[in-house]
Amino acid sequence: MQESNGSQVLTYETAGVSIDAGEEIVRRIKPLVRKTFNKNVLTDIGGFGGLYDARFPEMKHPVLVSSTDGVGTKIKVAIASKRYDTVGQDLVNHCVNDILVCGAKPLFFLDYFATGKLNVDSGTDIISGFVTACQENGCALIGGETAEMPGMYTGDDFDLAGTIVGVVERDDLLSRENVQAGDILIGLPSVGLHTNGFSLARIALVEQISNDERPKSLGGESVVDALLKVHRSYLHPIQNLLTKFSPQDDIHALSHITGGGIVGNTSRVLSDDLKLDIDWTAWTRLPIFDLIQQYGNVPEDDMRRTFNLGIGLIIIASASKAEEIVNALKAMDEKPIIMGSLSKA
Amino acid sequence: MQESNGSQVLTYETAGVSIDAGEEIVRRIKPLVRKTFNKNVLTDIGGFGGLYDARFPEMKHPVLVSSTDGVGTKIKVAIASKRYDTVGQDLVNHCVNDILVCGAKPLFFLDYFATGKLNVDSGTDIISGFVTACQENGCALIGGETAEMPGMYTGDDFDLAGTIVGVVERDDLLSRENVQAGDILIGLPSVGLHTNGFSLARIALVEQISNDERPKSLGGESVVDALLKVHRSYLHPIQNLLTKFSPQDDIHALSHITGGGIVGNTSRVLSDDLKLDIDWTAWTRLPIFDLIQQYGNVPEDDMRRTFNLGIGLIIIASASKAEEIVNALKAMDEKPIIMGSLSKA
Repeated sequence: MQESNGSQVLTYETAGVSIDAGEEIVRRIKPLVRKTFNKNVLTDIGGFGGLYDARFPEMKHPVLVSSTDGVGTKIKVAIASKRYDTVGQDLVNHCVNDILVCGAKPLFFLDYFATGKLNVDSGTDIISGFVTACQENGCALIGGETAEMPGMYTGDDFDLAGTIVGVVERDDLLSRENVQAGDILIGLPSVGLHTNGFSLARIALVEQISNDERPKSLGGESVVDALLKVHRSYLHPIQNLLTKFSPQDDIHALSHITGGGIVGNTSRVLSDDLKLDIDWTAWTRLPIFDLIQQYGNVPEDDMRRTFNLGIGLIIIASASKAEEIVNALKAMDEKPIIMGSLSKA
Repeated sequence: MQESNGSQVLTYETAGVSIDAGEEIVRRIKPLVRKTFNKNVLTDIGGFGGLYDARFPEMKHPVLVSSTDGVGTKIKVAIASKRYDTVGQDLVNHCVNDILVCGAKPLFFLDYFATGKLNVDSGTDIISGFVTACQENGCALIGGETAEMPGMYTGDDFDLAGTIVGVVERDDLLSRENVQAGDILIGLPSVGLHTNGFSLARIALVEQISNDERPKSLGGESVVDALLKVHRSYLHPIQNLLTKFSPQDDIHALSHITGGGIVGNTSRVLSDDLKLDIDWTAWTRLPIFDLIQQYGNVPEDDMRRTFNLGIGLIIIASASKAEEIVNALKAMDEKPIIMGSLSKA
């Protein structure tokens, strides 16, 4: 055993962890984060835990609905193109949709941001993405962790994770219970890949991404722009719909189309005696999906179980109310697609 | 623009994402995770969101307390020594302590586990660490995300993040309000570094880690064993204490000693007109800290703002009750240390 690993003095700073950079980011984001607070937030940034009032006086039987997620390798596209303010929005909206399909409205969100070397500017951009989407979804950014992990993330690499907690009245909980044969599948369009399938898309379009190409089929948009389009939150149209239609009688279930695609995700709300009858020609795929399939020679089956293919959320509606629901969505400037139905397996 | 990036067929599997490995991990952990459930968990694994009953009938004014954290580069030591079942425990216990210092008891936890290439065995070990600690802390593992991110994490690298949500009666919330001059600092021992300072420790002890050395000062324990000791949860002694002493009159605040050390963390519960008077000789440092300081030539000031130095949690107690609190802790087989007091700044 040697007496010392070197004569140099080792400090936390020379070990690669800059407490100052972390503190500067907190200083910059503090006023932004505060914008997301409401009267139920009983805390301020800097305490050990985020505090949220849990009385819910207007509810009979409140149920908390929570979800954790990441952005997957969409982050690699963001890093490669140095666009840091969108991936935080992707993550919040993804989480909002994940609890929305239970009928829940978001209460608060906590983020995890890990990188090899903290950069104050890009770090602030990343966290401001969380703030933007939290504000849009009426959700408080109540806590988070910014971790500097030298040796784990290389170069400009970073990773994000997020957790959302929302609430729903137990009687209004959307589950698989009311889903039945004859139900109609109403799709709401996605804006692109949202946050799934990027490991495949990045390989298929590796040259188009690095050259920032603008293929004709994208109508002037670059491949990177199309890939980085922010994951849509379906909170507002669905909340609006739930004020007009019953979560038990009319809207039997919702499905958020993430990894696993339309079939993989929608099957999660079906009992074993039901099957999906999907009309894959009922909508026009976004051109970015055709581009991925063409350049990657991706089999149709892999396209279907990897991507949302242009449908971000599916409403499983009672047959008797499907038309009314479609009309209500159109009145909100949505473009609903009747894309199939359920039948006995 | 070429017609295709290659004639090879590209699938999600060849792109580096194995849906089968993910499903196999879920199949293995499902019965383990279920062990953490209680009557308040209204969900089963596989839904979009985790459901938790939020009525709290025994409480007057419930407040949710939440926190997100990671394990930092302690993960790199775990990866290098291929010990996968402890870091999940570190993370849960860290989060439990973070909300415990507000007086909250844990309700549920959600994990994020990201890696470059999913390995079913190590992945199952990692998640089983969450299960072990959730059971020990009476906390339901209600959700999580396992993300395979080829190109982001190399080799066996992975990262973990976790979010805890707990609850506290508003009147029993521990805050800085009752903290005053004269209060006594009672430290509870840590078992080692817990989850902070690893970027520094790994550089200082790089050879000792790679040779898995057993220096005499560690009494037969290896350096890796000492570094990987699981972050202690202080839930049980503190909960016990809070049944005997008032959170307003006797126990004025708690401080979880993480990044920033004893001073950095305890200062968070002090108003500007108070200062810490710490007797740094009041306890014997664990030998692992001396080893880091010696091999890394780490200045004492950096030791103090990087490591817990053997104190994992500090109770800020009223002077009149400090002795009783110390005796109560001793009766629980704890080894409390009177390590200083507060005075006017």
